[in-house]
Amino acid sequence: MPQNAREVQLARRPSGAPVPEDFRIAEVEVPDPADDELLIRNVWMSVDPYMRGRMNDRKSYAPPFELDAPLYGGAVGEVVASRYEGIAEGDWVVHGLGWREYAVADGHAVRRIDPAIGPPQAFLGVLGMTGLTAYVGLLDIAALRDGDIVFVSGAAGAVGSLAGQLARARGHTVIGSAGSPAKVAFLRDELGFDAAFDYHDGPVAEQLAAAAPDGIDVYYDNVGGEHLEAAIGAMRMHGRVAMCGSISGYNATEPPPGPRNLALVVGRRLTLRGFLVGDHADRRQAFEAEVSALLREGRIVGRETVVEGGIEVAPQAFIDLLAGANTGKMLVSLAG
Amino acid sequence: MPQNAREVQLARRPSGAPVPEDFRIAEVEVPDPADDELLIRNVWMSVDPYMRGRMNDRKSYAPPFELDAPLYGGAVGEVVASRYEGIAEGDWVVHGLGWREYAVADGHAVRRIDPAIGPPQAFLGVLGMTGLTAYVGLLDIAALRDGDIVFVSGAAGAVGSLAGQLARARGHTVIGSAGSPAKVAFLRDELGFDAAFDYHDGPVAEQLAAAAPDGIDVYYDNVGGEHLEAAIGAMRMHGRVAMCGSISGYNATEPPPGPRNLALVVGRRLTLRGFLVGDHADRRQAFEAEVSALLREGRIVGRETVVEGGIEVAPQAFIDLLAGANTGKMLVSLAG
Repeated sequence: MPQNAREVQLARRPSGAPVPEDFRIAEVEVPDPADDELLIRNVWMSVDPYMRGRMNDRKSYAPPFELDAPLYGGAVGEVVASRYEGIAEGDWVVHGLGWREYAVADGHAVRRIDPAIGPPQAFLGVLGMTGLTAYVGLLDIAALRDGDIVFVSGAAGAVGSLAGQLARARGHTVIGSAGSPAKVAFLRDELGFDAAFDYHDGPVAEQLAAAAPDGIDVYYDNVGGEHLEAAIGAMRMHGRVAMCGSISGYNATEPPPGPRNLALVVGRRLTLRGFLVGDHADRRQAFEAEVSALLREGRIVGRETVVEGGIEVAPQAFIDLLAGANTGKMLVSLAG
Repeated sequence: MPQNAREVQLARRPSGAPVPEDFRIAEVEVPDPADDELLIRNVWMSVDPYMRGRMNDRKSYAPPFELDAPLYGGAVGEVVASRYEGIAEGDWVVHGLGWREYAVADGHAVRRIDPAIGPPQAFLGVLGMTGLTAYVGLLDIAALRDGDIVFVSGAAGAVGSLAGQLARARGHTVIGSAGSPAKVAFLRDELGFDAAFDYHDGPVAEQLAAAAPDGIDVYYDNVGGEHLEAAIGAMRMHGRVAMCGSISGYNATEPPPGPRNLALVVGRRLTLRGFLVGDHADRRQAFEAEVSALLREGRIVGRETVVEGGIEVAPQAFIDLLAGANTGKMLVSLAG
């Protein structure tokens, strides 16, 4: 067990797109776990778009990260010392103290993972909060119904790729948008989406109309902005939007314009609903059962983009994530 | 029974705010009712904001009005000839063939009204589609819950004034916005709203923040535009917006800008839901029972703005409605 380890601190609040200078790699002492605590060697950490909001100094749904303090977020690691009953050295756990090589965590705040269900890092992706976000958004928030035509934006991303695959596995027609030809090919050829387009190739409304000539019933929104307006325009009666995030605006320094066609929400009886996965922990069991079965049967895949290089590359991985460098779940390998 | 009677036709499609030249008063023959039909002498007709959308030549939730054909909409009248079993001469009915002095209607498409419940014209307002719209929007679409703080825009209008009163009658704190000092006084002094403001007096967001310092849980939206953005900004966690209409944009020739703060819908877990009252006929019985009791007890009032002068003043009444000339339900008296 090392005496010192590294962590990523927020050196200053980003203005617009984050840059490396907004972050600092610091070496800090590794404390001993107190009663009920664990010492965890982090092996995988998650970078997620929602973290960008926490870097601003304003109250969002989550409190802002503090300056000159370590960032945090999803991580998976191996327990190297335990003073918490029920979790032992050698166990693997998922927890919220990422962005550091070693974490001391309250044993109540971690979840032991069952390696028989999937590889450890899957519990940050397809079997983790990411997967649950896709599941809850699609089934509970958008209230997926038989026959719905589903549109997913950010469809090659961690959440979007699973939302689309879940809808496909249930027999729905699924259209996805993504930000590069390679991602579009991934959606069509590897994930079996019925249609996919690159939003750089033309107005989203036009491309969506071509890809979904009969319109859509469900829009899983990871993007906001132009995509949301286009989706509202394509909605059929009683359509539903699960508003999961709006990455298109996360780096914005000015408030982005809203959809100009919101009046359609009335006449078409649409529902737009925002959600946070943290409110839906009661769905974890059903989610895990369904998704792990689909994974075993090979009916869905948990695609990952793994960034090697340890903790010092984590800031750049996050910067690249916001620029769309990932396909599927973006993970930083801390194994060294 | 006259041989001829007058009706209002759409002479041309309005561009922006309607003007008198968009309408034509025509004298037409009054046909005899065929089997299953009724001849109705219209005594009251309704002018409603939603009619503006039907004057455009594009598919809305309702088909557009035809040029050189009579407009239609809610009306109440007395049956003067009946070939429909179950409705007799002298009965009063509510139906959808307004904008004309005499209507020949399919007996299946009218509803006989019980004069013991309220005066005939109330079935176009507080006891009619208008009232049901307020009721369904507040209770079903916004899913009003104990303790909710409620904001209503267009609160001195037909729907808004009832939505606010229904919430008040259930013990909620209610804030309303309206477009004149007289309307604001009406909300505060006659309807007992907890707070009310004139949206001309300053930014809606600032006035709403002052009127609802703890924020709001429910927004009953009759207006759209700046009001919707302000309401989203004032929403507390799990807040709900019933999107009933957006009169601020009905005369617009360019699509209005959407709210710039839609990203809040995610973090605050908001729901924005549009609806049309026509989908909710199953709620009429519950609505009528509750609202007629509240009316009898004097706990709500069905305020009306009556325009006298017969069918020839109906176009101007409609033009004035869109400009906000009404307090409560706007009706045209055709009694002559």
